[in-house]
Amino acid sequence: MRLVVIGAEAAGLSAASAARRLDPSLDITVFEKTPHVSYGACGLPYFIEGRVRSLDELTVYSAEYFARERNITVRANSEVVAISHPRREVILSTGGRERYDKLIVTTGARRDLSALPGADQPHVFTMDTWAAAERLKQFLASRRPRRAAILGAGYLGLEAAEALRTQGLEVTIHQKTGDVLRRRDPWLTRLVADHLERCRIRLLLDSPAVSVPDSDLVIIACLYRPNTLLAAEAGIEIGRTGALRVTPRMETNLHSVYAAGDCAETNHLVSGKPVWMPLGTTAGKMGRAAGANAAGARQSFPGITGTSIVRVCGLGIGLTGLSEQQAKKEGFDAVSVRIEARDRPRYFQGVPVSVQLTADRRTGRLLGGAVIGERGVDGRINVISTALASRMTAAEFETLDLAYAPPFSNVWDPLLIGARQLAKLLH
Amino acid sequence: MRLVVIGAEAAGLSAASAARRLDPSLDITVFEKTPHVSYGACGLPYFIEGRVRSLDELTVYSAEYFARERNITVRANSEVVAISHPRREVILSTGGRERYDKLIVTTGARRDLSALPGADQPHVFTMDTWAAAERLKQFLASRRPRRAAILGAGYLGLEAAEALRTQGLEVTIHQKTGDVLRRRDPWLTRLVADHLERCRIRLLLDSPAVSVPDSDLVIIACLYRPNTLLAAEAGIEIGRTGALRVTPRMETNLHSVYAAGDCAETNHLVSGKPVWMPLGTTAGKMGRAAGANAAGARQSFPGITGTSIVRVCGLGIGLTGLSEQQAKKEGFDAVSVRIEARDRPRYFQGVPVSVQLTADRRTGRLLGGAVIGERGVDGRINVISTALASRMTAAEFETLDLAYAPPFSNVWDPLLIGARQLAKLLH
Repeated sequence: MRLVVIGAEAAGLSAASAARRLDPSLDITVFEKTPHVSYGACGLPYFIEGRVRSLDELTVYSAEYFARERNITVRANSEVVAISHPRREVILSTGGRERYDKLIVTTGARRDLSALPGADQPHVFTMDTWAAAERLKQFLASRRPRRAAILGAGYLGLEAAEALRTQGLEVTIHQKTGDVLRRRDPWLTRLVADHLERCRIRLLLDSPAVSVPDSDLVIIACLYRPNTLLAAEAGIEIGRTGALRVTPRMETNLHSVYAAGDCAETNHLVSGKPVWMPLGTTAGKMGRAAGANAAGARQSFPGITGTSIVRVCGLGIGLTGLSEQQAKKEGFDAVSVRIEARDRPRYFQGVPVSVQLTADRRTGRLLGGAVIGERGVDGRINVISTALASRMTAAEFETLDLAYAPPFSNVWDPLLIGARQLAKLLH
Repeated sequence: MRLVVIGAEAAGLSAASAARRLDPSLDITVFEKTPHVSYGACGLPYFIEGRVRSLDELTVYSAEYFARERNITVRANSEVVAISHPRREVILSTGGRERYDKLIVTTGARRDLSALPGADQPHVFTMDTWAAAERLKQFLASRRPRRAAILGAGYLGLEAAEALRTQGLEVTIHQKTGDVLRRRDPWLTRLVADHLERCRIRLLLDSPAVSVPDSDLVIIACLYRPNTLLAAEAGIEIGRTGALRVTPRMETNLHSVYAAGDCAETNHLVSGKPVWMPLGTTAGKMGRAAGANAAGARQSFPGITGTSIVRVCGLGIGLTGLSEQQAKKEGFDAVSVRIEARDRPRYFQGVPVSVQLTADRRTGRLLGGAVIGERGVDGRINVISTALASRMTAAEFETLDLAYAPPFSNVWDPLLIGARQLAKLLH
């Protein structure tokens, strides 16, 4: 039995590793079009910022490691240009053909710059790949740009803004819509906009980039799309989200062909609908399920609550589930509360934490939340995510037994204060 | 209608406030035997340490605040010495009698020193009350003790040890049993013992205090018992735990009489059995339910997962649910994993976090967990607590959508690494 995996990042390597654990006899080959295997692309903004000194620091495991420790062949610089499923073959850019019994597609996502005039100029960069980050770093060192324009106020746009601001540039973020972080949430947008202003980063909302703006340096942190061309040409179905459609076992419509990671959609546990939300953690979980199933197991990945977190100039912003506006769009009778409370007693230097919680008025079910503050954001957003995964109501959430001691929290955690107000609204 | 509450700390004042919100016409009086109303007793170790400069900093609200803002009469220095339920009266130490229609008992807990010879000496202290903490602080300033003995390695014992070590004392903790923090967990005990050794705090296990040990200063942080005498004399039933037995609505066996807080037992959501685990957060939630029900609502408090957290000399220790040993005692086929992983990438100064997860082999259900580290303990223990409250299995826990970005975490959170190993053991 031969398993072929296309792509050697989180999803592809998790898939290969999961398959190996289940079947020691499987012949496993991973094809990677770039020279770089298994690196943490989420660290690229911190390479630009200077905190990560060398991109090698981001490499988790080498191809040699996979060969030696897991008996997995990882072939870097090997681009798959076509899949011939009737022949069970992938075709490489060299013209070579490689047979498979099972195939896992993890082709990721990319910036689609085709509709952006001027994107091919030398001062325009993306920040998604090793090569792009290296070129940007060199540009910063050699050209010393003074002004930077960033297209997109998603998490990468915010991280890029911080990285460049730290380098002393004047930074302007251009965001197509009137909101940030794809939440359609005016409250969140206001909080983030105010914070960016304090950090002297300009945020222009409702500012669609019809072309590349005038600046010394332009970073494209929008127009991110699932990389589905190869799969689509092979007849793999694409879902409504534009990403590859998969079952909870990561099966595509083609027999013995799986897809996972940023090229595929997944199930949103709150809306119950397919969603495309490309993130490394999800990619790893999807990859594991794909690999296990390709090796003959029956393993499902139930989906995501849609949790994300970003830090920009000291402020942590955690999001999960649906915002009130998103929930209404999904047909929920959504209602929200927003509170601000200190995370700890004053004698332990408590700082304010903002919490937003959204629930469905009809069922009381919690639908989403946001936590924003200098500290204590990750733990709290994860508590909300866990509650969403188990379909808790606001009333149940209010009785959670959260840890309390003065060095860590106040008696009434901001989450519980928020939940209490929400439960009152629902009565 | 007249509501009388005995005790003006977390449970009593939460009860009075919840009753007021529901019924603006209720006549509410709270009797408090000490001069101190609504202060955070959990902050007392930090008063001894010196971080809290004055005990007034710990006061949340004054009696005047309750009178003015909530129309609640709080009578400090007013000890209730008897309850005459047939007459619906409480009797004060002054001989005065006060009528009630509804009564809420929140008499808290206390150290029972009757079986400890020598406990009445002037160098022996508890650290549970305002008065005790004040006396201890004066003793430290005037006598300048060099050596301190602490009886009990529960969370108060550990906090006291840190507070006195910070003041430069040589500290020895005497613990009756062979474990710490009441978990019967050798792994936890070893981690805590090693840490205390590094902090130059002596921990003597299996060291029952038959009498007060020889030292310049002795702190009693054991022998904590529910304060049930008053209630028991009035005919209120006591449960197996030794605390007052209450329904999920906080009703005692006497009609119109409720109990809440450290004097009462509650339901353990994992074992499904009554438990006595006195903590301020639980007291507040129980108080709210008692107050709401006394005012005519129907509100339940489902119980606790048994979450606690303590910091000792920089190390955070979070616990929730049952330890493996406790779970076995409760009849579960318990199995545990213990892992250590960095909380963040190295370029964000990741530090090791230890995670222990316990599940039931028969059902896969998660039963408990521990998180130990310099950082990131509170958020993670709260995630486990949330999972326990919704009876998640280890397999479900493994797919949780936890927030990831390099400033906050690694791609695979230590919780997910632990859950994965646990799920493998259960297959």
